[in-house]
Amino acid sequence: MSGPTLRVEDVAQLDHDRRRRTGIPEVVFGEGKTPEQTLHLLAELRHGDPSAPALATRCPEEVLALAGAAFPHETVAVDAVGRTVTVGELPSPTGRTAVVTAGTTDLPVAHECRATLRALGVDVDLVPDVGVAGLHRLLGHLDRLRDADVVVVVAGMDGALPSVVAGLVAAPVIGVPTSIGYGVAAGGIAAATSMLASCSPGLVVVNIDNGFGAAVHAVKIHRRVRGG
Amino acid sequence: MSGPTLRVEDVAQLDHDRRRRTGIPEVVFGEGKTPEQTLHLLAELRHGDPSAPALATRCPEEVLALAGAAFPHETVAVDAVGRTVTVGELPSPTGRTAVVTAGTTDLPVAHECRATLRALGVDVDLVPDVGVAGLHRLLGHLDRLRDADVVVVVAGMDGALPSVVAGLVAAPVIGVPTSIGYGVAAGGIAAATSMLASCSPGLVVVNIDNGFGAAVHAVKIHRRVRGG
Amino acid sequence: MSGPTLRVEDVAQLDHDRRRRTGIPEVVFGEGKTPEQTLHLLAELRHGDPSAPALATRCPEEVLALAGAAFPHETVAVDAVGRTVTVGELPSPTGRTAVVTAGTTDLPVAHECRATLRALGVDVDLVPDVGVAGLHRLLGHLDRLRDADVVVVVAGMDGALPSVVAGLVAAPVIGVPTSIGYGVAAGGIAAATSMLASCSPGLVVVNIDNGFGAAVHAVKIHRRVRGG
Amino acid sequence: MSGPTLRVEDVAQLDHDRRRRTGIPEVVFGEGKTPEQTLHLLAELRHGDPSAPALATRCPEEVLALAGAAFPHETVAVDAVGRTVTVGELPSPTGRTAVVTAGTTDLPVAHECRATLRALGVDVDLVPDVGVAGLHRLLGHLDRLRDADVVVVVAGMDGALPSVVAGLVAAPVIGVPTSIGYGVAAGGIAAATSMLASCSPGLVVVNIDNGFGAAVHAVKIHRRVRGG
Amino acid sequence: MSGPTLRVEDVAQLDHDRRRRTGIPEVVFGEGKTPEQTLHLLAELRHGDPSAPALATRCPEEVLALAGAAFPHETVAVDAVGRTVTVGELPSPTGRTAVVTAGTTDLPVAHECRATLRALGVDVDLVPDVGVAGLHRLLGHLDRLRDADVVVVVAGMDGALPSVVAGLVAAPVIGVPTSIGYGVAAGGIAAATSMLASCSPGLVVVNIDNGFGAAVHAVKIHRRVRGG
Amino acid sequence: MSGPTLRVEDVAQLDHDRRRRTGIPEVVFGEGKTPEQTLHLLAELRHGDPSAPALATRCPEEVLALAGAAFPHETVAVDAVGRTVTVGELPSPTGRTAVVTAGTTDLPVAHECRATLRALGVDVDLVPDVGVAGLHRLLGHLDRLRDADVVVVVAGMDGALPSVVAGLVAAPVIGVPTSIGYGVAAGGIAAATSMLASCSPGLVVVNIDNGFGAAVHAVKIHRRVRGG
Amino acid sequence: MSGPTLRVEDVAQLDHDRRRRTGIPEVVFGEGKTPEQTLHLLAELRHGDPSAPALATRCPEEVLALAGAAFPHETVAVDAVGRTVTVGELPSPTGRTAVVTAGTTDLPVAHECRATLRALGVDVDLVPDVGVAGLHRLLGHLDRLRDADVVVVVAGMDGALPSVVAGLVAAPVIGVPTSIGYGVAAGGIAAATSMLASCSPGLVVVNIDNGFGAAVHAVKIHRRVRGG
Amino acid sequence: MSGPTLRVEDVAQLDHDRRRRTGIPEVVFGEGKTPEQTLHLLAELRHGDPSAPALATRCPEEVLALAGAAFPHETVAVDAVGRTVTVGELPSPTGRTAVVTAGTTDLPVAHECRATLRALGVDVDLVPDVGVAGLHRLLGHLDRLRDADVVVVVAGMDGALPSVVAGLVAAPVIGVPTSIGYGVAAGGIAAATSMLASCSPGLVVVNIDNGFGAAVHAVKIHRRVRGG
Repeated sequence: MSGPTLRVEDVAQLDHDRRRRTGIPEVVFGEGKTPEQTLHLLAELRHGDPSAPALATRCPEEVLALAGAAFPHETVAVDAVGRTVTVGELPSPTGRTAVVTAGTTDLPVAHECRATLRALGVDVDLVPDVGVAGLHRLLGHLDRLRDADVVVVVAGMDGALPSVVAGLVAAPVIGVPTSIGYGVAAGGIAAATSMLASCSPGLVVVNIDNGFGAAVHAVKIHRRVRGG
Repeated sequence: MSGPTLRVEDVAQLDHDRRRRTGIPEVVFGEGKTPEQTLHLLAELRHGDPSAPALATRCPEEVLALAGAAFPHETVAVDAVGRTVTVGELPSPTGRTAVVTAGTTDLPVAHECRATLRALGVDVDLVPDVGVAGLHRLLGHLDRLRDADVVVVVAGMDGALPSVVAGLVAAPVIGVPTSIGYGVAAGGIAAATSMLASCSPGLVVVNIDNGFGAAVHAVKIHRRVRGG
Repeated sequence: MSGPTLRVEDVAQLDHDRRRRTGIPEVVFGEGKTPEQTLHLLAELRHGDPSAPALATRCPEEVLALAGAAFPHETVAVDAVGRTVTVGELPSPTGRTAVVTAGTTDLPVAHECRATLRALGVDVDLVPDVGVAGLHRLLGHLDRLRDADVVVVVAGMDGALPSVVAGLVAAPVIGVPTSIGYGVAAGGIAAATSMLASCSPGLVVVNIDNGFGAAVHAVKIHRRVRGG
Repeated sequence: MSGPTLRVEDVAQLDHDRRRRTGIPEVVFGEGKTPEQTLHLLAELRHGDPSAPALATRCPEEVLALAGAAFPHETVAVDAVGRTVTVGELPSPTGRTAVVTAGTTDLPVAHECRATLRALGVDVDLVPDVGVAGLHRLLGHLDRLRDADVVVVVAGMDGALPSVVAGLVAAPVIGVPTSIGYGVAAGGIAAATSMLASCSPGLVVVNIDNGFGAAVHAVKIHRRVRGG
Repeated sequence: MSGPTLRVEDVAQLDHDRRRRTGIPEVVFGEGKTPEQTLHLLAELRHGDPSAPALATRCPEEVLALAGAAFPHETVAVDAVGRTVTVGELPSPTGRTAVVTAGTTDLPVAHECRATLRALGVDVDLVPDVGVAGLHRLLGHLDRLRDADVVVVVAGMDGALPSVVAGLVAAPVIGVPTSIGYGVAAGGIAAATSMLASCSPGLVVVNIDNGFGAAVHAVKIHRRVRGG
Repeated sequence: MSGPTLRVEDVAQLDHDRRRRTGIPEVVFGEGKTPEQTLHLLAELRHGDPSAPALATRCPEEVLALAGAAFPHETVAVDAVGRTVTVGELPSPTGRTAVVTAGTTDLPVAHECRATLRALGVDVDLVPDVGVAGLHRLLGHLDRLRDADVVVVVAGMDGALPSVVAGLVAAPVIGVPTSIGYGVAAGGIAAATSMLASCSPGLVVVNIDNGFGAAVHAVKIHRRVRGG
Repeated sequence: MSGPTLRVEDVAQLDHDRRRRTGIPEVVFGEGKTPEQTLHLLAELRHGDPSAPALATRCPEEVLALAGAAFPHETVAVDAVGRTVTVGELPSPTGRTAVVTAGTTDLPVAHECRATLRALGVDVDLVPDVGVAGLHRLLGHLDRLRDADVVVVVAGMDGALPSVVAGLVAAPVIGVPTSIGYGVAAGGIAAATSMLASCSPGLVVVNIDNGFGAAVHAVKIHRRVRGG
Repeated sequence: MSGPTLRVEDVAQLDHDRRRRTGIPEVVFGEGKTPEQTLHLLAELRHGDPSAPALATRCPEEVLALAGAAFPHETVAVDAVGRTVTVGELPSPTGRTAVVTAGTTDLPVAHECRATLRALGVDVDLVPDVGVAGLHRLLGHLDRLRDADVVVVVAGMDGALPSVVAGLVAAPVIGVPTSIGYGVAAGGIAAATSMLASCSPGLVVVNIDNGFGAAVHAVKIHRRVRGG
């Protein structure tokens, strides 16, 4: 009567052409997939393009635990905070993006962003926990931000930090609202609308908790800078 | 058949006891009232308590224009930006509140706040247009903020400024979101939620555009400080 | 391959300067942290400033259970209702804040508020369960409210109580909406908007369930009163 | 080519049977109709059932001005505040509903309610401007509320008054949120959600500004009481 | 160090006067309380007023299971669907309310309503599963609805049924939106707004899932009818 | 310096291929366009495909007044209620769609729907003002609805009518929410969500006030029926 | 005291007449029902109309596991992805609907849609994972979409795919928003509003995740095409 | 008594340092300012930095009409569609941004974006009216998009176009939601959330109608590419 559960590898249409069109390869989004599905798709991506590492984001615990054994002959990098798995040697980085967070609880999103940037060949300078409640922490690291080609600012709650940063640096600034917060901040809508409504010109925004998306935009900028 | 329009003075129950209970006298809210109604109620408040000035907020143009002639034997102060009318001598101020704005378009709300503070006996230091897009403007005026007993911060759009200020000063800080902005900021909800979700401890918030309410809270604090 | 989970103590930038700038020391927010992280940060705060108690809010069960053993040589106060841990002797209180609740289910937020006030040197008079459905309960305690320097009113559901209180007392009144309620009241937005829209002048509001923030604002007022 | 504008009397299907089914006759809602359409429908209702007055609500200025001349042989009552027109003698009232308002700006909705109650044969006791910011005003009129068979409470802004009233009287209480207010209260949603979330058992709510609907519910109760 | 969890009986201020003021006694709301707290409060209510049954709503499984043994000398009625416990003999009913539901999944709310009505002395005619998708089911029971003094209509999803019923009967109609539904209907806001916006005059609405509140309003009407 | 205003005909890329791909020709949406732009585009559409009439929707007054003179050699149909202009002979209709409205104020949207259906070759049976507050009006016209191939139901306020109709007929039913209503119904979201959440299977929904879109979907169905 | 849990079969009023009125038989919605209730109702539907298969949607795991054994003499089809159970031989299909998905995570909704279509006698062509991020995947399957009588497009996140499809095919297109996504897309409102606001004429929309409803609308169209 | 209206030039703190910090000079936002204020600030900006043109956005009609005469010795460019005024010679452009619109009604936002890009030294290729309802229009211009260094996509209603574009090009893509649309699309929230929720990696978003902000972000990218 009932057969086995649908196998994602039978119905997914992996977009192997994406790197050619957009410069960015397909990536596995692990949320809502079984560990088997995620590991299967990672392997397929890895075999489809051996010249670059394969990446999975939003991985559940089980994928993080199994990834090393699943690819015994590969270099595997697991980021337990950012919930990412990278299979294959990282490319030599060119260019640098600063990834700044307002609080320590924003770190998982920042780590997802960092792992994506590295897998796509960009160096990362992570500047954590410099939220506007203690502004001196940000001002003390301003040189690091000004040295970067692109700045990603990750913030939940009030979402104020990206507006402050965008008024201080010449690099393109990408705001990533996070779902950190409670009450009117629960889910990240307060942070997202504050960033979109920023009084600092040129701040752009991605979806709540979308560290991956911010990284991809940053990589596209780096590619332009390098003539990619 | 149809009689004349309802007269507000026939149905309003002025709360002459409010000053005794809360320290703050009743004030005329001019929005949605005819000029005649507002001027009538101003006169009634003035006569009911000659020891203090009477105040009307949210006055339409016509009230601002007629107020001087309506009280020929009184000192009348009209703030055309803040849309307030004060009838009677201002009391000698004790204590000082700093009223800070993120942009010039936030000034009407700041002026409403200032006129209320002055009518209730508090000195005001107005620090306009120091939004977070150019942080040096705020940092250049930090001494003025630190010299005040209370700080009111008026901001629309991203609503980020009160969070920054509340991390820098020891005085109680009151955030006033304004309806300045467009898109996701239209109407002021983005600013209000950002302030409520602030990562800076102790920031309190009033309704959008409610410069009057922020002033009343500040006055209540000043009264405590002075032993009132 | 994958190293251990990120240690919060390696990335958090504790704001040891906060007390100097704002009069309020850094506090540990336990939500989203492991028990080890919270206890570690509590210890760090305690050692960084032995002259004052260290406070953690939103503590999970495990922190509440372990806190006593973690600081064997200290006075440790655990509030299981308010989910707070205080390490160190409480300062002698000066001034008093009344903390009023509409219902018994609002008590956890009121307790968080009380523990914060006490850790920061303010006495507390807790007046629980006096919601507007039975107004005589509030009116019977009016003297206690009028004796306080500041009044914090904690209410979920309709959020009506702070508006009633703010019309009855001269002290500054801070409304704390809670997430208590269901249907249109679920999450506390109905209570928060009702408080922001209050017809009682001078009522200020903090984020939903933010008993801590209300306490910090109250402490800043007390400091002004005492000339701090 | 283009013919004249659609005539409402050609397409409206007046529900002449409504009084038989529900006890309440059809009423003309004047908003979005031309003055001619409203007056035409009023006449049709009046002729269809001469035993009872015909009522139009939400009438624009022009209808209010023309109504007397349009029915020269009838008793016409125009309420310019509530924007209603009643054509025909009012029935002798039986039973009484108290209509209470929080502020003077809520009066138009209260007047619409009163005109509807009177046209449908219920006496009205209007108690205006007794909002919770000055609670003594309400407590001073409590006997009038307790003498009524039904109590309608009209309030904008925080919407707190109906919750207070419903905890004080034995009569059924109907809350009418109004669109009075600004900021988070603009449009009346804050008042409506506060009333729905009321901690006072048995409070029921109608749409924002729907004084007519509250009156109809009250009339249905009165009919039950009288054995109708 | 940490004492035991706060005991609700130490902080709750039971409103024993409520029956005198409003005709409705205090009732225990079991959500968010421990089984011990709910049973304790039930006992206190029962002893405080032995002339009437004591009622608890929103009871968790454990309370439903323990209630019989907790009151060995009392008549205890447990409604496992409506999650209510009634302790004491039901009064002889006078008057009848019809409680109508759109679907079978709305039954828990209807049962809460029925248990409350019975505990307060009103007879109930329950008409389940007559939603508008099969209108003949409603029309087939119209006589039962027309025989009732009050009609309560419980509906989730589209919330259309109360509007249909209110156009068919002369009794006062109370709509109870439920949280039944998914997608745009999740949580019940779609049903609640549809009812508030009803084109059928006189429909009144209570909070989502608030079968208790609808019952209390109905009881207040019955009391008026009986001259109470 | 500044040249004349942008000419829409210079920048619009009329999709002349749309009829081939989707069976539906491009149509002019008059809102936000000058009368000249709308008439120009109408002419271009008319000339591009003389075999079928050209249609403009959401026309301002001026376009409605000028359309006849602008096409002196054409058959021009102007619907002043629905704000549409049709240029060219209507095709002979095949199939019939019933267009039902809840109230008379929903008629403009129904007329837009009817004009679109006719221009695209479908006959229309308009059944106005049969909202659920007087259900007998709908039941009296049920045969007309059952005779149609497709039923479009236009309703504002509670949006209940489409759910009732979809439970009574075998034809595909399309719900069109309208912006008619006030308070929680203002703008049509209450009607739209009620329709989407319908308990009647198979009801589909278009945007608020989108009579045009409902007509296009109906036409696509008719084309299938006729083998188009 | 407490009797057993309410039995759904005692209170449900199965609408056995629905097929006659609307062409679509009653179906069991398994969410919120116990496995016993769902299987009982399935059996009742099956026995009430043996000429057609009985269908249950939103079945929990237990129903999927037990269904085969519960109907030992029937053909039972269980779709573990779509969570449906069909009891009885499928009818010979006439006509074909294409069911298209944007991503693999949208497949459960597409499977619910497919199972419903098949149970009601329509053939299905499932085209998965052709979202707009890789447009060539959609364009490569365009012939399959153009061969279908009706096209259902299932998409979460941005909800962009239905708008693209509706501009490419002549068949009626039904958009099904899904709850797939996070941040601003969580719950499916972003996808639903994007579809309702589509710039492609004639796209109609059902509730979020409502694959069943889209199938019913499609079946109603097929019935028209076949002269049903 | 009342002095003249506040002069913006007395309270605005022009951020002359902004170009040094961020590479982008201060710009005048004309909305909410009097024509005199806007022209005054334009002159001040122009004189403060003669090496670059001064720009004003969101200019009312009067400013557009007066700008030429206000700067008789300057090159003045007025864009009546985009409501911008540029004073001073445009710099020689380096690099190119493609600005794409979904519809002709999105053109004002695209023009604001273009004027900003040109004033800041970037060439623009404007590709109007290529929305997803007629996908061939976009595909026909794909080479122009692929030749650009940055792509800005302006879209209202469903907001689907940026997701499609971001899946087709390697350049960084910036989505600008517009307030074009009605019903659920009114105000642009539907478009904004659809873009933020995009399934195409790397799409970033600015506030609704914020063509200026998108241009600034694009300029910052160009500066990086050129080594600025």
